Amino acid sequence: METENRTEGWSRKIYLELTPPSLEDNVSDQERILRALREEYGEAGCSLRVLQKFYPLCFQSEWKITVLLVWNGKCWELADIEPGDTTGEHYGFCADLGSTTLAGELVDMNTGKVLWQKSVFNHQIDYGQDILTRIFYGKDNPLKLEEIRKATVDSFLELFKKMEQDTGISGEQCASMVIAGNTTMTHFLYGLDAFCVFSSPYAVRTLKPDCYRAKDLGFPLKGYVYCYPGQANYLGGDILSGIVETEIYKQEEISVFLDIGTNGELVIGNKDFLVAGAGAAGPALEGGVVKTGMRAEPGAVDRVHIENGQVEIHVIGETTAEGICGSGIVDLLAEMFLNGWIDVRGRYVEEASEKIREVDGALAAEYAPGLFFFQKDIEEFLKTKAAAGTMVEYMMGEVGLEMTDIGRFYVAGAFGTHISKEAGVTVGLYPDMPRDKIVLPGNSSLTGARKMLLHKEIKEEVEKILDKMTYIQFGAVDNFLHLMAAAEAIPHTDIRRYPTVEKELKKRGLL
Amino acid sequence: METENRTEGWSRKIYLELTPPSLEDNVSDQERILRALREEYGEAGCSLRVLQKFYPLCFQSEWKITVLLVWNGKCWELADIEPGDTTGEHYGFCADLGSTTLAGELVDMNTGKVLWQKSVFNHQIDYGQDILTRIFYGKDNPLKLEEIRKATVDSFLELFKKMEQDTGISGEQCASMVIAGNTTMTHFLYGLDAFCVFSSPYAVRTLKPDCYRAKDLGFPLKGYVYCYPGQANYLGGDILSGIVETEIYKQEEISVFLDIGTNGELVIGNKDFLVAGAGAAGPALEGGVVKTGMRAEPGAVDRVHIENGQVEIHVIGETTAEGICGSGIVDLLAEMFLNGWIDVRGRYVEEASEKIREVDGALAAEYAPGLFFFQKDIEEFLKTKAAAGTMVEYMMGEVGLEMTDIGRFYVAGAFGTHISKEAGVTVGLYPDMPRDKIVLPGNSSLTGARKMLLHKEIKEEVEKILDKMTYIQFGAVDNFLHLMAAAEAIPHTDIRRYPTVEKELKKRGLL
Repeated sequence: METENRTEGWSRKIYLELTPPSLEDNVSDQERILRALREEYGEAGCSLRVLQKFYPLCFQSEWKITVLLVWNGKCWELADIEPGDTTGEHYGFCADLGSTTLAGELVDMNTGKVLWQKSVFNHQIDYGQDILTRIFYGKDNPLKLEEIRKATVDSFLELFKKMEQDTGISGEQCASMVIAGNTTMTHFLYGLDAFCVFSSPYAVRTLKPDCYRAKDLGFPLKGYVYCYPGQANYLGGDILSGIVETEIYKQEEISVFLDIGTNGELVIGNKDFLVAGAGAAGPALEGGVVKTGMRAEPGAVDRVHIENGQVEIHVIGETTAEGICGSGIVDLLAEMFLNGWIDVRGRYVEEASEKIREVDGALAAEYAPGLFFFQKDIEEFLKTKAAAGTMVEYMMGEVGLEMTDIGRFYVAGAFGTHISKEAGVTVGLYPDMPRDKIVLPGNSSLTGARKMLLHKEIKEEVEKILDKMTYIQFGAVDNFLHLMAAAEAIPHTDIRRYPTVEKELKKRGLL
Repeated sequence: METENRTEGWSRKIYLELTPPSLEDNVSDQERILRALREEYGEAGCSLRVLQKFYPLCFQSEWKITVLLVWNGKCWELADIEPGDTTGEHYGFCADLGSTTLAGELVDMNTGKVLWQKSVFNHQIDYGQDILTRIFYGKDNPLKLEEIRKATVDSFLELFKKMEQDTGISGEQCASMVIAGNTTMTHFLYGLDAFCVFSSPYAVRTLKPDCYRAKDLGFPLKGYVYCYPGQANYLGGDILSGIVETEIYKQEEISVFLDIGTNGELVIGNKDFLVAGAGAAGPALEGGVVKTGMRAEPGAVDRVHIENGQVEIHVIGETTAEGICGSGIVDLLAEMFLNGWIDVRGRYVEEASEKIREVDGALAAEYAPGLFFFQKDIEEFLKTKAAAGTMVEYMMGEVGLEMTDIGRFYVAGAFGTHISKEAGVTVGLYPDMPRDKIVLPGNSSLTGARKMLLHKEIKEEVEKILDKMTYIQFGAVDNFLHLMAAAEAIPHTDIRRYPTVEKELKKRGLL
């Protein structure tokens, strides 16, 4: 992810040793600086702040100065000057603006290295745990909308504060920022009513916002803020960022890019075509729906293995189990299925284990001391994985592809990273394909933002991607529910699609 | 000066009736608007303010909206949207930012008509009557410089306030503004230390400033502020604006453009070449040096005629004479010269009139009851007119031209307008050429600003003019003082240069 190319990012720092003004050469200070940059950077603009800094800075430093150029999306702009050579201190910032978490990175623009990385909760949570609550809070109410906007900005300011505490480098010292977030998040960042995102006909305020000056948005940086554009209401900049990160749009081979969170977003394609879609998908995987579900934080069961009828677990933070997170759920279901505790329909087989018993009038498995996974939890999970699987299946059908045509299957999201590939295939969350073809790129929204920050020319590429991409609104699809019902089995009603699972089941005498 | 062409100015208002969003066509609001404009206006930007105005405005007006596009010097930007058709109300503002007076005009951008025009004193006067005092006040002192900047902005705000009182149209309702001012004035407008303007090596902070958002400069307008660029420290945007107004850079014939104020600025050329220069010239004409000199306001003698030994005067405001302004001085000297009251060296001929007598130990002429024009006043005037004349003569020599090569002789400035051409020639302020070739364009700095406001493509032309123009620093010229001495006669030591004056003198028996 690191790059040695220091000349392609959204900002440049250039050390200049200029000849001071004389009667023979008394062009203006602005021209003296810009003419030294013109050949390489074209006709750069000059911010008012810098205009006011020329004197006495240039005079006192004897015209040995470092200039900061920032890209405003269309041309370079002189955003700062400093005395002497400060090119060594050249920073940028990138962020994944998630509805729950804001993850940011301080990037050394000279080397491309990440100097610091941290996450904070999105302060929007004060106005609702889930996005819809926030949207209704701000709906048709400019004052409340402004509260949400401010909360969004405050989340960044908290991150910058932590950064300064940890590294001594402040937001003021950063040049440019690239943000990737979904359509609702970018709407809130700009102070826009986001009800349109979830309301027919899904025409939002903006999908391809301009670059705005950081200061105008309330950020301390010297340059501009670029937000990844989105394709549609449910297919936002975070997904575009992931596509840039994985480079599926550059490849010969066809890839599937799947991001399962509260919603599921899906892109299929290669260098010749890109089809995208999105739909409600994964609440069960976020830990909010499953009864003992929780985030992947200390106390969460994140790994499960069943051996000799015993449930072996791993708990984050090596502490007492308090609940189960997404990767734990997938592991648990895969293991229970492979041990015959649940059948293909996800129903508990009560006699298969003493861990399975009736609790509060419903069957449940005790996966950790005092913690139970209920029949209803399984059903919720199956709906989620069926929705994701059906999106993939439906879209593959639309473009006339079989799973064997797929070169790579990307599962994005901080969360995808932690799910075991094998367990994911077993429960039918992932297709049954060579495991090295299943790629978990982690938080590709964040790393894609960093890639953009370091390569401003990608902005043009993203715009080409958007032009090329066809978006399918799943809500408008007829046989979607029908397909989904078929996918609500483990791993699928059509077991032939899962040969390695079939083989394993046969090996275990379950088929 | 009016134009019917409504499509070339720095702003556009366009009424759009757009089809509201539907499931079949649910592009973003921004795209819905921009795609309707794309063919004609390219890829327009969108201000944050407008982004926030899309909803509910577009919805409530059923997508019948008027958009305001402003030119930022490089591309169009969506600066406002309004419900319904408001294209009829489309305003711009232009101004001549003088060191004494700020003159502004409200322009109807649809018709090019001037709807309102007024002047106010430049509030900078609080920090010094003359420019140098202000410059020293702010020199190396950011806080005091900020006071001067604020005073400059306040002058505009006063003008906008008067405009709103007079017309009901506020600064907030105006789109773009074009300002023409000298280099010191633009420096003060941007909050820049202007000591550089008067101090060797005369390398100023900026001569070609960017277009800045009106709001960033402290103005209420919705769009951008363009300041005419300058050629050099002493040859600022006010002169460039005059050149644009007179169009001497477009003509086959060679013109001389002269602006005499506290300084004298001179441009000679045509469509093939432009030579420019500037120097200290005209304090005597501004009424500050002559003992009874005053501004052209009520009480000032502005016309003088001598008939049968009697001095006939006209007083501005038809009131009692309190002093004499520039046009009065030129008239007075011409008449005294043609009546033999003063000789070619400007010395009083005491016996020529009973009006000439010794007052306070020096010879003086009583041009109005109790008001005297002293020998020293004549000398001051001759220095001024010699400086201006010498600039012209020197520069003509530099480019190898005779006065007979000159097609038009422009004398700019509110002030030039009032000087009688005949008197100006008689005293040698203007060359002796056919009177219809002497053109007095008035405040061409202001009218040139208006022309720019209505024709944004002139920005490119001005940049070409600057590239083409050669600037001569008169301070560096050797034989300047020598030439100047020769010009300190009435009309000139070489009377053959003034054939019509020679003829008149002969007719009157004075030669």
